[in-house]
Amino acid sequence: MAGAVKMSLAEVTEFLEREFPQGFARDRGRRIEAVGPGTARVRQLATDEHLRPGGTVSGPTMMALCDATIYVAILAAVGPVALAVTTNLSINFLKKPAPGDLIADCRMLKLGKRLAVGEVAVRSAEAAEDDLVAHCVATYSIPPDR
Amino acid sequence: MAGAVKMSLAEVTEFLEREFPQGFARDRGRRIEAVGPGTARVRQLATDEHLRPGGTVSGPTMMALCDATIYVAILAAVGPVALAVTTNLSINFLKKPAPGDLIADCRMLKLGKRLAVGEVAVRSAEAAEDDLVAHCVATYSIPPDR
Amino acid sequence: MAGAVKMSLAEVTEFLEREFPQGFARDRGRRIEAVGPGTARVRQLATDEHLRPGGTVSGPTMMALCDATIYVAILAAVGPVALAVTTNLSINFLKKPAPGDLIADCRMLKLGKRLAVGEVAVRSAEAAEDDLVAHCVATYSIPPDR
Amino acid sequence: MAGAVKMSLAEVTEFLEREFPQGFARDRGRRIEAVGPGTARVRQLATDEHLRPGGTVSGPTMMALCDATIYVAILAAVGPVALAVTTNLSINFLKKPAPGDLIADCRMLKLGKRLAVGEVAVRSAEAAEDDLVAHCVATYSIPPDR
Repeated sequence: MAGAVKMSLAEVTEFLEREFPQGFARDRGRRIEAVGPGTARVRQLATDEHLRPGGTVSGPTMMALCDATIYVAILAAVGPVALAVTTNLSINFLKKPAPGDLIADCRMLKLGKRLAVGEVAVRSAEAAEDDLVAHCVATYSIPPDR
Repeated sequence: MAGAVKMSLAEVTEFLEREFPQGFARDRGRRIEAVGPGTARVRQLATDEHLRPGGTVSGPTMMALCDATIYVAILAAVGPVALAVTTNLSINFLKKPAPGDLIADCRMLKLGKRLAVGEVAVRSAEAAEDDLVAHCVATYSIPPDR
Repeated sequence: MAGAVKMSLAEVTEFLEREFPQGFARDRGRRIEAVGPGTARVRQLATDEHLRPGGTVSGPTMMALCDATIYVAILAAVGPVALAVTTNLSINFLKKPAPGDLIADCRMLKLGKRLAVGEVAVRSAEAAEDDLVAHCVATYSIPPDR
Repeated sequence: MAGAVKMSLAEVTEFLEREFPQGFARDRGRRIEAVGPGTARVRQLATDEHLRPGGTVSGPTMMALCDATIYVAILAAVGPVALAVTTNLSINFLKKPAPGDLIADCRMLKLGKRLAVGEVAVRSAEAAEDDLVAHCVATYSIPPDR
């Protein structure tokens, strides 16, 4: 997964706020923190909307976070492909997150012409230890006519 | 997966609106339509919040819908277990949904003492044909001290 | 998933014995029992090679059985595509199989131009009850130049 | 996943050859190369039995390899638990392996009282580059009465 990025952090952020305001508008509580060659980091701010009993981020919020983080990594790697779509997503919830923000780190496992596969590790932002809260692997289909 | 349900449609609905207002409050656009022995049907109302470019329900909304529908089926089968948690969820997105509501049908594949596994088929409510929009399999961990 | 099959049971069997003797030679203990529009049934004969302590078919044997059963269903639906390859396979092991043969039933969830997705239900052949032993969903990539 | 191992490489190897000769007998072409705290490395020797057209290791062989590698990592971490069973396995096949041996590296993502989750990266042993051939995540259920 070597190679330079095709979109910078600022370019990816601007693209997503414009094209997918539902998922990436600033008030949705998600912030892209870094992109690199085949990598991306996205922070999920803990907000009331996503809390479960106990004050932790909900499972569906983590699934959406993982899906979005892989999309960010694909965008950074291949450029603005608005029509890439998730075809498969598998997630394991490993431990209850601590209250507070979550950090999702994506690493692309494959960036092919037709399919891209990435894995995402989710951690509590505040936790001292490095244990994962969730781990996700997802496949995106890349449109053929780029 | 034979056997009677332990909670009726009305009981499950009331329980979820009270315990998980974030996921099942009436204004979230989700409605439990039926429960049976090892089965559940939940409707996702198409609302602006969940739209993507093109006017269709988003992938994360479908993931949350599937997760919730399995939880409904577990509740109906084993009674009010607020602490059952998703440990694994795998979803395939099969075709772009038509604009409009979605219907999720869950069938439990296993209802064990420690683990419950269910599958969910998601269809467009309005579609004439029967093609699936998405298909999901998820595992819930059941707390040991019921 | 309507439509006629493009290869009959006899044609699929002959094709696989010729092209994939490693997986489908008669002495491998697998037998194709039926194909239909978007469906296939394959029997795994219980042989010593696949036993685990306790005399039941092993997990890896069930994974291979599910993978093969979906391939059979794809072949029957689209014709002899030797180069279709599995891209993703997810399986849940639901209960210990009873000693004896296993029956795998595949139903295609999607048969697209580029991707095909199928689910497989595995049961003990001899069991009186209908409980699943395993449940699998897998995606095959179809070569573009058919 | 810190902590010392409870079984050494020699102890795990001896245990598996004795308890699971079907999967780990020397002539099966699998060799445990290393174990560590929450990690394991297993080599799949390329033998005729596992070849596909083209001379590469088959998909089912890779699935069995991943399953076995996670089991090795669990054994090393928790000691001889013959009854730990796979409950879920999800694998992505990323590229056709080069002819020759495969190396599977497992890292445990969770080692809980009831569930253990591990991920496995599979590479071609001879390949100059570091690209993954396959990536797998699987869950094992640990018997409660250890």
